Formats: sequence, C-alpha cells, structure tokens
Amino acid sequence: MSSMMTHNSYGKSRVRLTKVIRHPEHHELKEVSIDIQLEGDFDASYTSGDNSKVVATDSMKNTVYVLAANHPFPDIETFGSDLANHFLKTYDHVSSVEVELQEPRWLRIEHNGKPHPHAFVSGGQETRTAGVHCTRDSRRVESGIEDLVVLKTTASEFWGFIRDQFTTLPEVRDRIFATSVSARWNYQGGWSQYNSTHSRVRALMLEVFASHHSLAVQQTMHAIGEEILAACPEIAEISFSMPNQHRIPFNLTPFGLENGNDIFVTTDEPYGLITATLKRQPVSRARANERRSDKARPPAKM
Amino acid sequence: MSSMMTHNSYGKSRVRLTKVIRHPEHHELKEVSIDIQLEGDFDASYTSGDNSKVVATDSMKNTVYVLAANHPFPDIETFGSDLANHFLKTYDHVSSVEVELQEPRWLRIEHNGKPHPHAFVSGGQETRTAGVHCTRDSRRVESGIEDLVVLKTTASEFWGFIRDQFTTLPEVRDRIFATSVSARWNYQGGWSQYNSTHSRVRALMLEVFASHHSLAVQQTMHAIGEEILAACPEIAEISFSMPNQHRIPFNLTPFGLENGNDIFVTTDEPYGLITATLKRQPVSRARANERRSDKARPPAKM
Amino acid sequence: MSSMMTHNSYGKSRVRLTKVIRHPEHHELKEVSIDIQLEGDFDASYTSGDNSKVVATDSMKNTVYVLAANHPFPDIETFGSDLANHFLKTYDHVSSVEVELQEPRWLRIEHNGKPHPHAFVSGGQETRTAGVHCTRDSRRVESGIEDLVVLKTTASEFWGFIRDQFTTLPEVRDRIFATSVSARWNYQGGWSQYNSTHSRVRALMLEVFASHHSLAVQQTMHAIGEEILAACPEIAEISFSMPNQHRIPFNLTPFGLENGNDIFVTTDEPYGLITATLKRQPVSRARANERRSDKARPPAKM
Amino acid sequence: MSSMMTHNSYGKSRVRLTKVIRHPEHHELKEVSIDIQLEGDFDASYTSGDNSKVVATDSMKNTVYVLAANHPFPDIETFGSDLANHFLKTYDHVSSVEVELQEPRWLRIEHNGKPHPHAFVSGGQETRTAGVHCTRDSRRVESGIEDLVVLKTTASEFWGFIRDQFTTLPEVRDRIFATSVSARWNYQGGWSQYNSTHSRVRALMLEVFASHHSLAVQQTMHAIGEEILAACPEIAEISFSMPNQHRIPFNLTPFGLENGNDIFVTTDEPYGLITATLKRQPVSRARANERRSDKARPPAKM
Repeated sequence: MSSMMTHNSYGKSRVRLTKVIRHPEHHELKEVSIDIQLEGDFDASYTSGDNSKVVATDSMKNTVYVLAANHPFPDIETFGSDLANHFLKTYDHVSSVEVELQEPRWLRIEHNGKPHPHAFVSGGQETRTAGVHCTRDSRRVESGIEDLVVLKTTASEFWGFIRDQFTTLPEVRDRIFATSVSARWNYQGGWSQYNSTHSRVRALMLEVFASHHSLAVQQTMHAIGEEILAACPEIAEISFSMPNQHRIPFNLTPFGLENGNDIFVTTDEPYGLITATLKRQPVSRARANERRSDKARPPAKM
Repeated sequence: MSSMMTHNSYGKSRVRLTKVIRHPEHHELKEVSIDIQLEGDFDASYTSGDNSKVVATDSMKNTVYVLAANHPFPDIETFGSDLANHFLKTYDHVSSVEVELQEPRWLRIEHNGKPHPHAFVSGGQETRTAGVHCTRDSRRVESGIEDLVVLKTTASEFWGFIRDQFTTLPEVRDRIFATSVSARWNYQGGWSQYNSTHSRVRALMLEVFASHHSLAVQQTMHAIGEEILAACPEIAEISFSMPNQHRIPFNLTPFGLENGNDIFVTTDEPYGLITATLKRQPVSRARANERRSDKARPPAKM
Repeated sequence: MSSMMTHNSYGKSRVRLTKVIRHPEHHELKEVSIDIQLEGDFDASYTSGDNSKVVATDSMKNTVYVLAANHPFPDIETFGSDLANHFLKTYDHVSSVEVELQEPRWLRIEHNGKPHPHAFVSGGQETRTAGVHCTRDSRRVESGIEDLVVLKTTASEFWGFIRDQFTTLPEVRDRIFATSVSARWNYQGGWSQYNSTHSRVRALMLEVFASHHSLAVQQTMHAIGEEILAACPEIAEISFSMPNQHRIPFNLTPFGLENGNDIFVTTDEPYGLITATLKRQPVSRARANERRSDKARPPAKM
Repeated sequence: MSSMMTHNSYGKSRVRLTKVIRHPEHHELKEVSIDIQLEGDFDASYTSGDNSKVVATDSMKNTVYVLAANHPFPDIETFGSDLANHFLKTYDHVSSVEVELQEPRWLRIEHNGKPHPHAFVSGGQETRTAGVHCTRDSRRVESGIEDLVVLKTTASEFWGFIRDQFTTLPEVRDRIFATSVSARWNYQGGWSQYNSTHSRVRALMLEVFASHHSLAVQQTMHAIGEEILAACPEIAEISFSMPNQHRIPFNLTPFGLENGNDIFVTTDEPYGLITATLKRQPVSRARANERRSDKARPPAKM
C-alpha cells in the first residue's frame, strides 16, 4: 500500500423539506433544501467496505424530516444548528458536521390590499442560505444571500484603469451596472436573531446599490459592506461575490445611427467577477487606520 | 431524387436587447430576448447552397438593434409586430415571419418608500411573452405569462377520482397546491393596450389562485380562465399549462410520529401537467349552454 | 357563463424508469423519462371539480412501472405504444393518448478490449426520443434524436447572401460549423425495427455532416435528410432543427496580430436556427421534378 | 471607519476560446472556458473608486485570445500556467493569479473506420479541468475530471450500516450503482505530460469502476484512488467527489407483482455525496502502516 487517506466526508445532499406552520389566522411556509456532510471514524468503509460505523445517507434524510416535525423552525440557521448537533450527540464517532441550507424566497400574495394568510408567490431565483459547521469543541454559523439580481441604468462609471497593449475597453462615465449579489457573513457575541439580520442586510444591499454613485463594481461592493457592518453590530465579517453582468453598447455606426447610450446587447458571458471580505475592526486599530488613511487617500477622485 | 422539402424556415434566436428610455425624472428599462423565424423563397439555399435570397441571421440580429434605436417600445407586442412587418416589407420573397419575445420581470427598488427612478431588482424567473405571426394577408398577436410560481398551503382538495388496480394515491381534503402558471392568449377587435391586459391577467391569476377553493388543479385553472375572460373583453381565447409541483407528505409512522399535515417532501418530478383552452363564447350560444348546463350540472359537489 | 372550453388534456410528466434486463452473460440497461397526456371526457373536473372520471396522474405513474415490469422493452417506441394502448383499452372515456419518451445514451465501458457486460458510461446530453399518439381510430409513431452536438473545423463556407444596409457579416470561405442536430421522423408501411432505424439515422447524420462540403447550414441539413430518406425506405418524413452555434473570429488587429482563421470566441447566443421537413416523394412525381430541376438548377455553384 | 478589507480579488470568468491547429493531414480542436482571478494592490478601487491600478477584466479577456494566438497549446495546464505567469510578469502590483480552465470533451467522428481529420462529435457533459495558482514564489498546478457519469447494474452491495431509530433503508446485496465521478489531483517532481496523465486517470476510473466489486461507494472511490496513485507516480494527491445517483426499486406489491430487482425509479435528488482525498505515502511510513493494517484489518468481510 503506497497511499494514505488524508480526508474523507460523506452525507446527503438536496434533502428538500416543506414545512407548514398552521397558526389560527395565517400559515407560515418554510421551504429549504439541505446538504449534510459528516466527518468521523469512517475509514473502514473506504478501505475495506466495512460499513459498521456508517450512518446511511438515507437515514440522514429521514432525520431531517423527523427533526423538522417537532421543531419550531424559526429560521434555517437554528434548524441547521440543531440538525448538526443531533448527529454529534447521536453518533460518538462523528467528529464534525457540516450543514448547508438553501431557502427559496416566497412572498405572500397581496389580496384586497393585505398579505394573504396562506397563498404565496415565488420571489424568484434569490435564495437565503445558511451554513453550520460543528465539531465537539466549536460551532460556526454563517448566513448568506445568493443571487439578488439588481440593475441600474445610470450612476455608474468606469474609467482611469490601466491602458496598455491589451486594452480596448473605452472609458465610460455613464454605464448600466447589473449584477447578482451574493454574500455570506458570520456573527459575533452569540447572536440568534437571524431573521432580522437577514432583512437588514438585504435592505441595505438594495439601498446602497440604488443610491451609491459607482466608480467601480469594487467600490460599490465595499460601500455595501461598510454600511452593513455599521448597521449590524452582530456581524463579524462579510464576504461578497458580484459578477458584472455586462450590457454592451451596440455599435450603430455601420447603420448610420448613433447610439445615444440606450441600445445594449445583454450578455451572460464572459463576465467580470469581483470579490472581497470585510471585517469589523477593533476600535483601537480603526482609529489608527483612520489617521493613516487620511494622509494616504488620493485627492478628490470622487 | 426521391424526396421533397415540404417546409422550411430559419432565423436568429436569443437576440438579447436592453433598451433604456431616459425620461427627465426616471428611466424605463426594456429587456427582451427575441427569436425570429422567416419563411419564404429559401429553397435554393437548402437544395444547392445558393444563398442569394438568404437574409443572414446576423443581419436579422442587427435589424433588432437598429429598429430598437428609434422605437418608442411601448410593449413587446408592438415591437414584435413592427419587427415582423419590417421583414415582410423589406424582402419581397419572405412570405411569413414569426417573432417570439420574452421579457424578464424587473421591479423598481423601493427607496425611501418610493419606487427608485433608475434602480431595479429582478422579479425572478417569471417572464412576459409575446408571439407575433405575420404573413402578407394576416397578423396574429399573442401575449403570455410564463412561470408564475405560486403555492398555497390549504384550500385545496383532491378526491373522488377513479380508484382501480393502478391507484395508490390516497384521497385528500387538505393539501398543498403549488404550480407554475403559464398562459397564452390572443385578442379580438384590434386591441393594442397590451400592458394593461398583462397587468390585469397577472393580477387575476394571483387573485383567483389565492381565493379559489380548489377541488382539482383543473378546476382552479378553469376558474382563472373564466375570470380573465369575464374581466378582459379584449381577450378572445386563452390557453393554460400548469404543472402540479407535488409536495408529498413524509411518512413519519416508522419513527413513531404522526404527520399532522405539516411535513412534506418537496419534489420536482414526476409532475402532473394540466392544460386547457378557454374561448369567449358568442352570446347566443352562451345562453343556450347555460340552460343546458343548469340541468346537467351534478348536485352540490362543491 | 361567457366562455367555453375548446380543449383540455392532462397527465404525468417526467416519469423516470430504469429497467435492467438480466441475461446470463450480460445486462441490458433501459432508462427513459416518460410524459403522458390524456384527452377525453374530463370536462367536469375543470368546470365543477367533479373528479369521478379522472385517472389520477399518480396512477399513470404507477402504470408505467407496472407495465414495464413484464414488458420485453425492445425499444421506447414499442413501450410507448403499449402504454398508450393501455389507457385507451382501460378507460372508455379516454379518446386520445399522447406519450413522449426520452432515452439518454448509455455506452458500455470498454474492458480488456471488449464491451463490459454490466458497466456503462454516459453518452452525454444526446437523447433518443419517441412520440406516440393514439386515438380509437389512429396510431402515429415518431422517432427522434435530440442534441447530437457536432463540429467541424473546415469544409464549411457561407457567402453570396443578401448584402444590404442591415448586413455587416463578412463572407467567408472557410469557417467552423458547429451545431446540435435534432430530428424527428415517422414511418410508413408498418415498420417496427426502430432500433435499426435509429442506428442508421444517427450514423448518417455523423457521416454526412463530416463529409459534406457545406455552403450553408441549410444545405447540409438538406443533404442529411436526402441521404436518410434514400437509405431508410421505412421513413416517410423527417424534420430537422439545427442551431448554428457560432464560433466568431476574434479581432486580433488591435493587438498587432492577424487572425489566421484559428482563434475564435465560442458563443451560445444569439444563434441561427435552421429547420426543414423532407418527405419521401411518390415515384411518379419524383421523376417529373427531376426533369424540372435539371433545368432550374443554377449552374455550378458548388 | 469601523471595517477593514481582509481579502479581495477580481477577474474575468467564462472567457470561451476555440483554437484550431491546422496540421496538413488533420486539425486539432482546442476548446476551453477560462476563469481568471487576480490578487494584488487593488484596495484603492474598492475603498475610493481609484482604478489606476486596475487591469480591466475586458483586458484580461483580450489577453486570453492574444496569448492563444501564438501558443502551441499542448494542454490546458500549460496554457493556464503561461496565462498566470503573463499577469505576474506584466503587472508588478499583482501578487497572485488563479486560473481555472474547463475543456469539454470532443471526439473525432469515425469515418470509414478511421477518426475523421476535422469533424468532431461531443463527448457529453464530462469536462477536463485544470487549476493554476501562481504567486511570485510558488506555482501549483492541478488537473481534474468532472462529471464522468457511470452506472453498473450489479456487483454493488450496501449492508452492515448502522440500524437505529432513524433507519428505514433495507440492506441490499445487489443494487444499481450510478455516479458522476469528479476528481482533482496535483503533481510531484516537475511533471508536464498532462495529457498522458489525464488519459490514464480516466481509463483507470472506468476500469476500476467496472471491475471492482463494491461494498460501498466509499470503498470503490478508495479503490479507484489507490489504483491511480499506483499507476501514476507523478500524482502526489488526488481528491474525489462522487454523488450516489440512486435508482430506487419501485414497490410493485400493491399491484400484485414482485420486483425482481429490475424496475427502478430514476432519481436526481436527494443524493448521497461521498468525498475523499488520497495522498502518496512516503515509502518508510507506508511499510509501517502495512504492518499495522495487517493486524487491524477486520477478518474476511469481503
């Protein structure tokens, strides 16, 4: 034998649950797709097909529905945590559990000017996500938003970038800015009000995207991150990924027309992809940085 | 030669256009994907590679952007009609033009309680569609909605169906009803207010879906159709397609629990698929039918 | 009531079946996704929620697996026909049945230079299809191939097309030709050797695509159709749909280089879409046409 | 300011290149989709919209085509490495470059019993991948295969797993085993014959999958990994991800039939997901382990 196994994990993916909570006057709809991965003493299954310590992935699936049955299900973060803990508690040889949860967006149908008590319409491709990673000693909860697709038709520029022999892109002072915001954040201080954080983060994403005058996708991303960290003290760190879904001005010159910055080719690919991670700064260090950055900042670019 | 060509057509698909209409106080965003198909005297291209009558599909693509440049673009039905007419007018040997248009749903971002003048958020996978078919003698305009995904957690039953040796489905008096409504309609009487029809149809779909007590997907579909024909005299005929996106009660019995009609497996497939076409009835025939159906109707099923 | 229902149908879609036929020396693998639609006396379900004549779509699903259990399953056309007949035979009020079948392509893994008796590798996105439509008086069987993706790097030209104010596409004597062939054909004369027809059609598609010198996608499509009709007398009519999956020469001029017809941008959209239907011609009419076309054919274009 | 940016990167994704290498007797077809991400001194773009150090992602796209023009392109690993080095060499403030490459599988069409010189057919959804990560001091090259979909109809068991209150899955001695193999490996010792490694890895995946008698997906994965490390001394480490694409026996009992292990429901979700990483072991340690594992191995399970 010339090889060693340095890592293994396994589990069930795409366990899809719909739970209805029937209040007297209205129903709550919980819909979620769950991926579970276990690590632990599973080597024998790999090396010799000895499954005596294997929790069948089918049993993991059962567990999701059984735990959901009597769970208040306030949010996917809490349910994911309880699910992860269940596996650690039930199986001594499990050392670590990773649970990923994706929740589609359902909106109540407006009916006679009020939200309907039990009828919903899809909120589209956007999903709320959560990730829970638990070991015997640690627990990490992350929350996220994926595919919040936004577009603005002005208040976006892109110029001043490097021009060299590989550059053909013209500078532009007024362009369409379209992207699909995805973000993921974690918490400090034992926070558990995940729904309110999610709402605030989402509102700020839309708010800052709409109102920020953008000199770069990078800059808008950073501005969104700063606003979120300022408004949500429970968030320790937030990471973003934003594709630049280009709208390319169609060249009307061959047809004797001028493009008045209003006719664009809608494209999916290739696309720019911008990422960043912002972290809450200890107050002392923040003050020092402020002083430094006062000096370093370039004069009045914006 | 032992074969004859009995039909041919060709064109450009997925021509994707973004047009911005810049009003002083706000911007309009028009985004559409367009498929064009031409029929006409194109046989020589097929039989001998003689392309002298071929309008290159690349030129069709150009035409979309060129026509869009000076077009008021009130709605996709009007733009599609003008596009179809353009090809008939410009090329004598074109006998028929089919244009299909798909418009994603963009919503204005709410900002300080008001719709933002130039920032938008995606309305999801739902699309507004239009189809225009023009020949030298005729013009047909259809409008549609695709993938309006809705779900209700109660007020849906399904029972009384055939029970035979192939039946295992239990009867159920309270089930989740989830579907993705797609519909397509045409017009009578030279109607051209396509935006208002679209809004009314969409509102009625949501309204009837939410409020109708359903004994079958079929019945809800029919009820939606009847309401639309009643409310929109400009519509001559409407066709529906609705998949039944099943939520299946998870069997908790092996785990010593009872499913209180609240824990479901979310499934995509297999799915029921229900279709129907409803047509406005000439008044005289409607009256006759009413009399007949008074007698024929089964007693008080609902 | 001001509306009448002019059409309805319903059924189950995406019923996915895997059947293994265990011969002593090797196994056969049958995998198919099935869509069923019934028409008949189902109006009451739509108009009043009276389901007494409704065959539940869940029962249709059951029927697929039950019928498959004792079926020799020589091909999807035969299974689809038997399935359609089953519904007509079992339910008097069913007037018409449509069954669509899609079979992915599984290839035997080569093992020691021989096809493995029970291990398979996916043949990709290409599918074999069948469509059966049966009424009390008629039966139509169609076969098809979808998404046979092919590409050739030369022996494809496109020139001589209309040049007008909407044309920017250059003429080209040597281009990449990439497409995804889809076709659908029906039969004459009570044919039932569907597997051999499928093999011959597929082989001819590849053969003609590879060897035909193309002046237009249209011409290659027509050539494939003619060869198939010539080689498969059992086929009455065949329809094609072929997207032109453009590879666009990248403009290297701004970088001081020339594109030696070797560097291309791979694109999915927009795409040309070419269709045609070819029909076997009665011999007498074919002769007359041959005489006419001798005269009409343009001189030596190819 | 209360936040600090702890990470950022950006680049262009889905740059799709087709390159034809025209030999006298045959053509080579290179098709690849490329994602580029740069790290470096880009903070000012985020914090103040100062783009003076930004390489526009459009320029990255241009660079792909320009470098490809005069590149021999022996394999995606080499092209990816040269692309990564280009950015480090050209831009002093770039500290790290990540390039991901995906190559679809094109097969030559067989023509008169020989591979055609310039006509190809798609090999399906399977892709060959490469990942290159370069800094000023380091270079890591990884190769991979994604979505090699395989199925076998026997020689797969699953039993002996934990049975507790969450278990309903029956033990089974003969089941269908279907999966989509994805793997990723890196190299030792300055290897550069990436094409031959890719071919050997792929062949072994099919070979071991077909011939291994499986007691668990885990065990088959491990066996594939061991064979690859044994046969490819250039590989240092290999990681696998294999979904278990379940085929579930359809319950025929309600219909008075028995399922002779031949009628299955084909499912996509939920699915088991199994992963592992195997590493080449230093010879000395391997010997020690061998001795230990002789004792530790459970008696004759297989």
